[in-house]
Amino acid sequence: MDVFPRKLWARLAARVARSLSFHNYARQDAAGSRRLRDAIAGYLQIARGVECDGEQVFITAGYQGALGLIARVLIRNGEQVWVEDPGYFATRAALKWAQAKRVAIPVDGEGLNVEAGMRKAPAARLAIVTPTHQFPTGVTLTISRRLSLLQWAAASRAWVIEDDYDGEFHYRGRPLPALKSLDRQDRVLYCGTFSKVLFPGLRMGYVVVPPQLSDEFASACVCLQPAGGMLEQAVVCDFIEQGHFARHIGRMRQLYAERRAALVTAIERWCADSLHVDVQAGGMHLLTYLARGVEASTLQKRASAKGVAFMPLSQAAIEASMKPGLLLGFANVPVNGADSAARRLQEVVAATFLEDQ
Amino acid sequence: MDVFPRKLWARLAARVARSLSFHNYARQDAAGSRRLRDAIAGYLQIARGVECDGEQVFITAGYQGALGLIARVLIRNGEQVWVEDPGYFATRAALKWAQAKRVAIPVDGEGLNVEAGMRKAPAARLAIVTPTHQFPTGVTLTISRRLSLLQWAAASRAWVIEDDYDGEFHYRGRPLPALKSLDRQDRVLYCGTFSKVLFPGLRMGYVVVPPQLSDEFASACVCLQPAGGMLEQAVVCDFIEQGHFARHIGRMRQLYAERRAALVTAIERWCADSLHVDVQAGGMHLLTYLARGVEASTLQKRASAKGVAFMPLSQAAIEASMKPGLLLGFANVPVNGADSAARRLQEVVAATFLEDQ
Repeated sequence: MDVFPRKLWARLAARVARSLSFHNYARQDAAGSRRLRDAIAGYLQIARGVECDGEQVFITAGYQGALGLIARVLIRNGEQVWVEDPGYFATRAALKWAQAKRVAIPVDGEGLNVEAGMRKAPAARLAIVTPTHQFPTGVTLTISRRLSLLQWAAASRAWVIEDDYDGEFHYRGRPLPALKSLDRQDRVLYCGTFSKVLFPGLRMGYVVVPPQLSDEFASACVCLQPAGGMLEQAVVCDFIEQGHFARHIGRMRQLYAERRAALVTAIERWCADSLHVDVQAGGMHLLTYLARGVEASTLQKRASAKGVAFMPLSQAAIEASMKPGLLLGFANVPVNGADSAARRLQEVVAATFLEDQ
Repeated sequence: MDVFPRKLWARLAARVARSLSFHNYARQDAAGSRRLRDAIAGYLQIARGVECDGEQVFITAGYQGALGLIARVLIRNGEQVWVEDPGYFATRAALKWAQAKRVAIPVDGEGLNVEAGMRKAPAARLAIVTPTHQFPTGVTLTISRRLSLLQWAAASRAWVIEDDYDGEFHYRGRPLPALKSLDRQDRVLYCGTFSKVLFPGLRMGYVVVPPQLSDEFASACVCLQPAGGMLEQAVVCDFIEQGHFARHIGRMRQLYAERRAALVTAIERWCADSLHVDVQAGGMHLLTYLARGVEASTLQKRASAKGVAFMPLSQAAIEASMKPGLLLGFANVPVNGADSAARRLQEVVAATFLEDQ
């Protein structure tokens, strides 16, 4: 957020505001502005290998809004949904509100264990996955797993939700194209968000649905969950069309790679006795393992008093037993702040270790 | 829309855009900006007699977004919901997506027939009502009906959704305060929208929930349906706080009263043989009855070819048998266009009558 081109954004927004036409005051498409939907379709084709038409793109209030809309259309009361274990806690919270039955499917070194899913809940309605960088392990879903997931979905008429929350941030070579790019049978709904690539306050995301679901999504979003924020939609659209978006992503990828490297180095320097960094190919956080188990909440409270924030790995688990560890976000830690952050973290961890003895 | 102060709006929007602070780029409250929620609470107290705290106000994508959020929190699969018959078709469409069981409750000269509701579906979970100007009949729900509705809700632990979509537009004396203002037992959720008072493209509304539901709504909206459109929220807030909102409503009420009077006069002049106007105390449309029944869709197609739009009354009915009639929106018919509109309508109706003989 500290390097987001806020001046440029403000200038574009002011220009959008001044040039509103009569048409902008009339009723807007509940699925979002067609211009933005087309711009997203264009971007996805180039960046993620996803072929789709603007018609299939629905603008939502971030990933959570996309889940809300998806749940409305696809989940009937009590139906089963595969979720990754460990996985993203916010997805699980959403499913509770959607009255779905969450089924925890283990994740291993190849990503979601599709065979385990087929044993545990073969008739599930949905599977929600983070194929590019699994949250929180950072693992990329392998090609063979991707294919078996798609096969299962086609055979059992289930749907796959691809949460590509940070597909843009990959630091070793090129990321795999999106799972959606392999979706010959039209079973994948692809979710992306601008909140991570641009800024969180924007809270704008989208879902790309298979063509056969476009009408149902259009109807559900008119009835219960229309897209709002016409001004922001127009600004995002200008940002993309004028090339700022691609440039910004390129810059952020470079910057995040530097910040990530700096934090890894700092942790290896300061926390070698207490933390082991498991460097992944992408994402916006470091996966680290503690030398031994400690009460996560005590550690967290102490760290927060020193201005250090992390998420205990255990919070991502449902049934999975996980090695004790911490997820450290590096996106907001400047290169010249990494050392100090690692030192403070080390103090906190060391003090907690000592007390535990 | 033709008289909305678009220049002023654009100026405010440009100012908001230029003065975005670092804070605006950070994660925003999923319930909407606290400043706007407080401003709405202040407005509702003065204008509609509703006492609430900003905490209880949730910003939504119009009335439909409010229904979506309400359905998430309050409707379990297959539960019964009272809807007015005749009533607002979009409410019914939303309930279908929400997997609720709609129960049609008749409307008479005192508004929703609460006793009929208690006979037909005493254990319903929700009742959705338009107490100020019932849609489409324009009837105001009487005080005794309001009290029995609230009594029923309190006794059966049901909830009442007050859709106050045009409470601002009342032309004979002062409108009754909102039903919510009588809600001593905290059973009423009050829905308002800016899309009608300001402009449709804004698609912004809100729901005021009883204090005991605030936490659940906060959680559901974070998980599945966050408020977006931070820029628009800030503009609406400035519009209210700087007094433009109150002035605009006053001006529109005056203008709509003139347009309504002009259209009534024009219809009485040109359509006396075919249409009878049933003038109501408020709202944004005229209720008119046809001298005799005609096929509504033929009439509509013909009218639309002449640039005249209306809604056949029959489209608002579920089980209710209604006299054949038309709902004519007057909000967008300028005073000096009323005569021509009425004349074109007369031609269409006369031609259809003739053909039917």
